[in-house]
Amino acid sequence: MDLKKYLDQKREIIDEALNQYLPLETEYPQTIHEAMRYSVFAGGKRLRPILVIAAAEVVGGRAEEVLPTACGIELIHTFSLIHDDLPAIDNDDYRRGKLTCHKVFGEDMAILAGDGLLTHAFQMLAQNSEIKTINKQAMPLVIKEVAGAIGTLGLIGGQVVDIQSEGKEIDLPRLEYIHTHKTGALIAISLKVGAMLMDAQEEEIEALFQYGKLIGLAFQIVDDILNVEGDEVQLGKPVGSDLRQKKATYPALFGIEESRQKARRLIEEAKKELEIFGEKGEILRLLADFIVERTF
Amino acid sequence: MDLKKYLDQKREIIDEALNQYLPLETEYPQTIHEAMRYSVFAGGKRLRPILVIAAAEVVGGRAEEVLPTACGIELIHTFSLIHDDLPAIDNDDYRRGKLTCHKVFGEDMAILAGDGLLTHAFQMLAQNSEIKTINKQAMPLVIKEVAGAIGTLGLIGGQVVDIQSEGKEIDLPRLEYIHTHKTGALIAISLKVGAMLMDAQEEEIEALFQYGKLIGLAFQIVDDILNVEGDEVQLGKPVGSDLRQKKATYPALFGIEESRQKARRLIEEAKKELEIFGEKGEILRLLADFIVERTF
Repeated sequence: MDLKKYLDQKREIIDEALNQYLPLETEYPQTIHEAMRYSVFAGGKRLRPILVIAAAEVVGGRAEEVLPTACGIELIHTFSLIHDDLPAIDNDDYRRGKLTCHKVFGEDMAILAGDGLLTHAFQMLAQNSEIKTINKQAMPLVIKEVAGAIGTLGLIGGQVVDIQSEGKEIDLPRLEYIHTHKTGALIAISLKVGAMLMDAQEEEIEALFQYGKLIGLAFQIVDDILNVEGDEVQLGKPVGSDLRQKKATYPALFGIEESRQKARRLIEEAKKELEIFGEKGEILRLLADFIVERTF
Repeated sequence: MDLKKYLDQKREIIDEALNQYLPLETEYPQTIHEAMRYSVFAGGKRLRPILVIAAAEVVGGRAEEVLPTACGIELIHTFSLIHDDLPAIDNDDYRRGKLTCHKVFGEDMAILAGDGLLTHAFQMLAQNSEIKTINKQAMPLVIKEVAGAIGTLGLIGGQVVDIQSEGKEIDLPRLEYIHTHKTGALIAISLKVGAMLMDAQEEEIEALFQYGKLIGLAFQIVDDILNVEGDEVQLGKPVGSDLRQKKATYPALFGIEESRQKARRLIEEAKKELEIFGEKGEILRLLADFIVERTF
């Protein structure tokens, strides 16, 4: 199986669905829909929705069955980026090589565009129950778990601790808290809900969740490394910004080489979780490798 | 039936439930939970959750059956106030006689506290499905409809148009758009979902939804009037701020007296919607009257 082809294929399905699910730019009030679409279509990798789909597939489902949820998760990711970039938080002017939402549409519209995407995400999650072949009974739990992964004990909590750690010397437990919450929680829940919607067995769901936590942490460590030695053009943002902003990162704590080894170890552990899926787990294994080998 | 007693009773149940549902201030990361609780317990009237409960009751349900949803709706209301008050939006220092969230906790924490409350709200909505006596099949639709009422075609859309109208002369259709979206949408959906969760009949749900739209608009007109001639101590915020900020309001367009008459007409129309409930509609009738007669 060719991973690149798989990713391209899924990305196309996801982009098409996002385009269909989001209010049109011509819909009143236009500015907010322009702002939401600007950020959603600013060139993301679509990693999280692809993980929702891959998890559904590995337990016997199809992409079409979980597409509203997959897209909802991507909107949540975009919401978190827009609010992170705000002047009051990270104050970033560029993301993926483009001006950030607030630089183009103003701070007020960026706050509301984030709010709008977060809200629309839950609308789409709920909408997934209209697909007849999914496990409808899992629906409220799926929404509750996604909300839990985003909330103050998940992604938002990670962002809070990240803000409070800026410019301070922090230890490993705190750094891991930030990484597992700010990045890991949404990645892990993507895998879990993809399987839940397909009525997978408890041990399959748990294996995918553990796999998700491990690749989520590895993903963030690689992100930290790329911020030190990545290619600005490929990344679409300035390198070295973490160091300048005195952000807590793995390379800052352990150096580049040890950080890379840690990421590789996590990926090996993640792949072990996939053993119960046998050959069907191939795409998820390749995805895990892709996460440490990526250069953007 | 004594309305004051009814309101006090429900408020107590709601406050107790909110206290139970929200993460404790001692829970890590503490600051965000302090910020969320600060704003939630800053002295709201709890109108929206009371409407959820009253709607459930008028179709034969009990407060306990819809309490997670009622509280979720109040968190959504609080989220919208925190983000509205931000420097980049309305830049308000006081709300209900207390410093606004960002004045106490900083702009970054206020943005994230709003995000946290919005997210937690959906968690609680989903959690309502754990109550055995409700109509579980309505659950995804309830969440979808609430998200629709908050989103860019609802509350957030109203806020966008409000921002874009500041300092401009606007006409009645635009003013009504702002009022029905920014305030009316969440009030109307509160009534609708209270009845939906209780598996009410289609015409009952529709009557409550229409009632909600009418009292929602009346509520905002009265708010505008109070901003001109209300009592600062009772309101807990400076009067005349709309005028100073050149906000679009009913009194600005029609004067105080005609605005008051319009609110009264809407309330009479709203009460007509309650006819199908007969005597059981008494509390909702009294609530409608309360909305135009209130002084805070």
